[in-house]
Amino acid sequence: MNALSQTPELGAAYAAVRARSAALSAPLSAEDCQLQSMPEASPAKWHLAHTTWFFETFLLERFEPGFKPFDATFRVLFNSYYQGVGPQHPRAQRGLLSRPTLAEVHAWRRQVDARMQALLEGRGADADCRALLLLGLNHEQQHQELLLTDLKHALSCHPDWPAYVPMPALPDAAEPATLRWLGVPAGIVALGYDADTDGEFHFDNEGPCHDLLLRDFELASRPATCADFQAFITDDGYRRPELWLSLGWDWVQAGRRQAPLYWRDGGRELFSLHGGQPVDGAASIAHLSYFEADAYARWAGARLPTEAEWEHAARHFERRPGDGHFADQGLYQPTGAAAGATTSPQQMFGTVWEWTQSAYAPYPGYRPAAGAVGEYNGKFMCNQLVLRGGSCVTPAGHVRASYRNFFPPEAQWQFSGVRLARDV
Amino acid sequence: MNALSQTPELGAAYAAVRARSAALSAPLSAEDCQLQSMPEASPAKWHLAHTTWFFETFLLERFEPGFKPFDATFRVLFNSYYQGVGPQHPRAQRGLLSRPTLAEVHAWRRQVDARMQALLEGRGADADCRALLLLGLNHEQQHQELLLTDLKHALSCHPDWPAYVPMPALPDAAEPATLRWLGVPAGIVALGYDADTDGEFHFDNEGPCHDLLLRDFELASRPATCADFQAFITDDGYRRPELWLSLGWDWVQAGRRQAPLYWRDGGRELFSLHGGQPVDGAASIAHLSYFEADAYARWAGARLPTEAEWEHAARHFERRPGDGHFADQGLYQPTGAAAGATTSPQQMFGTVWEWTQSAYAPYPGYRPAAGAVGEYNGKFMCNQLVLRGGSCVTPAGHVRASYRNFFPPEAQWQFSGVRLARDV
Amino acid sequence: MNALSQTPELGAAYAAVRARSAALSAPLSAEDCQLQSMPEASPAKWHLAHTTWFFETFLLERFEPGFKPFDATFRVLFNSYYQGVGPQHPRAQRGLLSRPTLAEVHAWRRQVDARMQALLEGRGADADCRALLLLGLNHEQQHQELLLTDLKHALSCHPDWPAYVPMPALPDAAEPATLRWLGVPAGIVALGYDADTDGEFHFDNEGPCHDLLLRDFELASRPATCADFQAFITDDGYRRPELWLSLGWDWVQAGRRQAPLYWRDGGRELFSLHGGQPVDGAASIAHLSYFEADAYARWAGARLPTEAEWEHAARHFERRPGDGHFADQGLYQPTGAAAGATTSPQQMFGTVWEWTQSAYAPYPGYRPAAGAVGEYNGKFMCNQLVLRGGSCVTPAGHVRASYRNFFPPEAQWQFSGVRLARDV
Amino acid sequence: MNALSQTPELGAAYAAVRARSAALSAPLSAEDCQLQSMPEASPAKWHLAHTTWFFETFLLERFEPGFKPFDATFRVLFNSYYQGVGPQHPRAQRGLLSRPTLAEVHAWRRQVDARMQALLEGRGADADCRALLLLGLNHEQQHQELLLTDLKHALSCHPDWPAYVPMPALPDAAEPATLRWLGVPAGIVALGYDADTDGEFHFDNEGPCHDLLLRDFELASRPATCADFQAFITDDGYRRPELWLSLGWDWVQAGRRQAPLYWRDGGRELFSLHGGQPVDGAASIAHLSYFEADAYARWAGARLPTEAEWEHAARHFERRPGDGHFADQGLYQPTGAAAGATTSPQQMFGTVWEWTQSAYAPYPGYRPAAGAVGEYNGKFMCNQLVLRGGSCVTPAGHVRASYRNFFPPEAQWQFSGVRLARDV
Repeated sequence: MNALSQTPELGAAYAAVRARSAALSAPLSAEDCQLQSMPEASPAKWHLAHTTWFFETFLLERFEPGFKPFDATFRVLFNSYYQGVGPQHPRAQRGLLSRPTLAEVHAWRRQVDARMQALLEGRGADADCRALLLLGLNHEQQHQELLLTDLKHALSCHPDWPAYVPMPALPDAAEPATLRWLGVPAGIVALGYDADTDGEFHFDNEGPCHDLLLRDFELASRPATCADFQAFITDDGYRRPELWLSLGWDWVQAGRRQAPLYWRDGGRELFSLHGGQPVDGAASIAHLSYFEADAYARWAGARLPTEAEWEHAARHFERRPGDGHFADQGLYQPTGAAAGATTSPQQMFGTVWEWTQSAYAPYPGYRPAAGAVGEYNGKFMCNQLVLRGGSCVTPAGHVRASYRNFFPPEAQWQFSGVRLARDV
Repeated sequence: MNALSQTPELGAAYAAVRARSAALSAPLSAEDCQLQSMPEASPAKWHLAHTTWFFETFLLERFEPGFKPFDATFRVLFNSYYQGVGPQHPRAQRGLLSRPTLAEVHAWRRQVDARMQALLEGRGADADCRALLLLGLNHEQQHQELLLTDLKHALSCHPDWPAYVPMPALPDAAEPATLRWLGVPAGIVALGYDADTDGEFHFDNEGPCHDLLLRDFELASRPATCADFQAFITDDGYRRPELWLSLGWDWVQAGRRQAPLYWRDGGRELFSLHGGQPVDGAASIAHLSYFEADAYARWAGARLPTEAEWEHAARHFERRPGDGHFADQGLYQPTGAAAGATTSPQQMFGTVWEWTQSAYAPYPGYRPAAGAVGEYNGKFMCNQLVLRGGSCVTPAGHVRASYRNFFPPEAQWQFSGVRLARDV
Repeated sequence: MNALSQTPELGAAYAAVRARSAALSAPLSAEDCQLQSMPEASPAKWHLAHTTWFFETFLLERFEPGFKPFDATFRVLFNSYYQGVGPQHPRAQRGLLSRPTLAEVHAWRRQVDARMQALLEGRGADADCRALLLLGLNHEQQHQELLLTDLKHALSCHPDWPAYVPMPALPDAAEPATLRWLGVPAGIVALGYDADTDGEFHFDNEGPCHDLLLRDFELASRPATCADFQAFITDDGYRRPELWLSLGWDWVQAGRRQAPLYWRDGGRELFSLHGGQPVDGAASIAHLSYFEADAYARWAGARLPTEAEWEHAARHFERRPGDGHFADQGLYQPTGAAAGATTSPQQMFGTVWEWTQSAYAPYPGYRPAAGAVGEYNGKFMCNQLVLRGGSCVTPAGHVRASYRNFFPPEAQWQFSGVRLARDV
Repeated sequence: MNALSQTPELGAAYAAVRARSAALSAPLSAEDCQLQSMPEASPAKWHLAHTTWFFETFLLERFEPGFKPFDATFRVLFNSYYQGVGPQHPRAQRGLLSRPTLAEVHAWRRQVDARMQALLEGRGADADCRALLLLGLNHEQQHQELLLTDLKHALSCHPDWPAYVPMPALPDAAEPATLRWLGVPAGIVALGYDADTDGEFHFDNEGPCHDLLLRDFELASRPATCADFQAFITDDGYRRPELWLSLGWDWVQAGRRQAPLYWRDGGRELFSLHGGQPVDGAASIAHLSYFEADAYARWAGARLPTEAEWEHAARHFERRPGDGHFADQGLYQPTGAAAGATTSPQQMFGTVWEWTQSAYAPYPGYRPAAGAVGEYNGKFMCNQLVLRGGSCVTPAGHVRASYRNFFPPEAQWQFSGVRLARDV
């Protein structure tokens, strides 16, 4: 079971999540942890610091008697985007913060961890404190995923394609799963976080739960694979404007795109957190932009699901045992769905984030939380698309049916893939 | 009555719409018609040519016996974005086409008009031809509006703020209308074009008509005025990050924004198609980006309506007689709503395009039309927001309740304003 | 004879120069005269206006009794870069000035011409007035050349490569001239304007005349030809970094350069002011950047001359009768040097501007003129290289041995070519 | 004495220079050594690696029997710009090379050092080897200076302005030196490296030595001070376009410049390698762009010296004992010249690099060295200006009268200052 699933014991959950961050950075040198390869990505050290900043700023500062920050300058250095907290070091210059060093950040982490455990012993039962703690832990899990995706991008800029960790031993490749279409009936369905089924915690953007009308549709039994996407490329997918959104075609032309991010050598090889690897045709395709996912769907005579369709399907079908392999397994690359009878969709969770066609927007009646933590989600609801399901670098137990991830359409550096849908 | 409302007699409708374009360009010199002040805007001459290209390419080429183009090079020069027709002259370089001259474009227009009338006499009754003709005429009306908004931007770049045409004599200013909130009840409502109420023609993006669930909400009785927006500015609206979307705040900072487009001198003066004018506090505010509209709504403790709410309200309330003043009245600047009893919203049509919070997306079951005209709408459904209602530079009769306009959130050069909504 | 050579009769000279500008614009439509294809280039209409602005601002405003400007707003609109006069309309937005129209600019020109003739009758003998008048006329001649080069660039952006004027009938092509090396002996030589030999007028940057030491060197008997440059391309000139300056190689890579500006189709065709034309191997190559000229020289085992070498050679050898064909001949494209005995260099003047290796810098003791006209030259002495000799679009009589033209190293849109030099 | 002055014993010289690089990096963490704050600047680790690459590539690869590189991938990773050696990792992405780590780079250094000492014992007397070794050592000294200037820029991006090393104890401030004008007589003078006076080594760009004519001029007895420059600022120096080159004024406007790099708080504080410090009015001003130096000179009614004037003055006057304080003293910030009798100029060496007005260009007869090392200097001779004299972060003994440094006019991150000259 996962540290944050169901109703966790807080001290233990806190310790587990924090330890996981430290473990993720263990294979990295101080130099590796300093890298920032684009404005949208942050150094591993910054992730380790910012998640600590969150607890110090939003919990200790509020609840700890006689609060004194570890270092007052960190309040600015490691504030991401909370205008309510104050100024921020510019995001594109996070890689220029050599001070504090990695060792100093770890020392800070240890000190905050001790103070947090003391706090939890005293105040852990308070509803306010508990809510903020759960938010902080889920926040840290998000940054665990970002640490890996940002690191992957940074290491990919090295011409030698160095590995983060060696490729673990893989089970023998199963026979690839055939794509089937699973019908979902029309009706009035509920969208959004449901306390009865979705665990104790959710982000504010997952609610309020509300009803909406869905039409009949069909959903693909598995995400598209590398072989599927290779067929799109072979069929001149990157050279046919009629397959693309207008912005997508501009993006293809401007970047002279011919393949997904991290592919090279005509699709024979790709970069992974385990270094360069041969492309496995049966594996689910990852690192697609929305433009690529959308063009692929059009080429396939299908379309992307809406987020309501996706969530409804996730609730409608029985969840397959062992669906997805999350980050905890140490394999940071998507595998393929296994062949076999499929009455429910495969790999809905924990393989690749699945682009939906839905713009990231507030649910009816949505109100951001009060105070600076209210900046967590709402202010990003523009020019982004919702992705669902979690990926192979998402911590196990972090996601649920109502979970909404979001990225701009050109983003590729997440493990983002595509599952098709179609009208009936 | 308007040329295209209801079921028009085609030859007369064609003549009327085409004559209107020529009339709009009549006050302009050849030099004025050459101006392109940004990649998103086109020269007036280009609009005159491109609308003619539409009829020559999509109607005459298909239906005219022994078709020969006026000039074969125009096929490329005046193709906007139809990949299905072939290559296009780069959009940002339309202002570099001194050849053909304005006089030659007018000659082309006259020749095509004569050929089109001949065609309509013979084939006008054919459903295909009729459908394309109505599309061409509505297309030309859209470009009539763009001709004015693009020209306005170009003339605003001249330090002397020259007028397109003089300000017409205005009626005495009525007492400003108070903002009231009009309740709209929840329910399952239809969204999208309805042949029974919306006239013969619609764009493909207005369908399919489909049901959806709406919650109770309230809509403002009139758009926000210049005085309303001035209060936002005075209250430091442009200096408070908590009022803005994250992208919006970036946009404010990068452009050092302090007022809407075309305002200067601390809000005392603005640029209009009638030259520089004092700001009229009672007039509906225009030239807001989505970011400004959204920030204004947040500041006002309200929100933007969804497009479904807007359309439903437009159908739910009785349309006010004489609602809006469209472009045909020769006043190219929004006025204010008149004071008085308001059981239905004022200025829903023909004053300012009203930003909704809805991303421009396909309706369930949407399929673009076959062939190159299918590129008209669908491929732009990304990173744009829907606006509703038409503006003071929209041709009368061009819009309807189901009409969907769309622009990226940073666009300001349309007559785009804001009407508030709120939850109950 | 040329209007400005030797000591001109001022009224006649003024009339001749001004009439030439009008004649150059006569083949152009109002639309053509509006085009601005890059920030560095100006619309033809702007050139016609700015040269008029020069006379109104620097002569009439100072000397005309009861001076009143034609239009007070023109002072800003048509000020190029004279901070001493006041603010300027941004250079990159000159193409957005549709007002005044071309017809209005011509009316302004005629009014100023009449006022200038009146002034010259009364004050023409005054030294101050005479000096400024000569400056104004030489200034207008420079803009005549820029009008043609800027127009050429603008027309080249039209996909149909329209002609400014038809190609005149050419004499039968002579046999191409063989390149020979002409020795020039070492010594102390004078550099800079010499009133005894160089006519009445010079720009301030041509002085003070001063001595310097030159070493023996050899100069090519003619500029490089298109065939010469084609050999460089064929020998992979654009693909060998060792031939290029570091900035030049960056420029090649960033622009994916493979041929000079205006060449296409593998060097079979080029754009000229007479429309598309086959490349004539015997003609002098034009439209090279400094980077290309420098790389070509290195490839040829030679180097560019210094400006001192160039000027000294121009004075040392007897000037060939009919050297060069200036703009007055109506052929706006370089020809080739004719075969035959060559004891003096061919085409030193009036064919292509010849890049020198000399940075544009002040001569020892240089002082800009007092007042705003002092901004004419001195403030541009940074990151530019000197070119010498005049081109086929330079007005006849405008240049002399001491004449210094200057452009940044990446500039290509002038008729800039290359004549080799080498050490002995 | 300095390691490389006069005719050094090679093994000892090698050891001394190499040890100095290691010592310079000793106060830095692995994170500090990873920073790259702009494309023009490199990480400290990269400097340590690249200088090692130089010896491995240009000496060991050629002379070492059975040569095998430490790591074959380093050939690309640490090649700066030598096209003759092969491809290069992109300069702007040097900060993304976390592998090899700093520790690995130091291991490489130690291994190469051992191999180099072995080589020198065997082959040190060979002329070829000796010449390349001296080049390699002088190259490393240049990178020692760059390591400090690049690091300074990187640390300045940290909002807390961290120190590289603490400020050493300073002697009591002497009375500031008054500026005097020192006359230098006209004549034919030699420019360039002279083996009799300038030591054994020189870069190829310092020759050939050649004569040229100089006119009488006067040189300032000391560089401009912070107080001098503050007077320029106070007199609206950054707001008066007439003081600036045209490109310089653009640079001021685009960057909203109001003070030199690293100044803040209205000139009360500046950033140094010793952290934030009060501005010392008597100290020589540093971190000026050429534009600022040139504008300052114009404001002062003077001009910048030419490089010939500078070098001639440096040879003409007797060199003052202890002139300048080079990097070896551990104070990485310029001091002021001491008051007292001045028959020769103060601080010509080892305080600030002094901008000259001379474009960086080849001397007559200049030929780059054969092979890849010929790319060291020649290919950069475009759009750069010469600076003379060395700075407080230049290794002692590294510079001489003929030494030519060069940077583009906008560069500020070197310790670049200004010494005035004027005509007589």
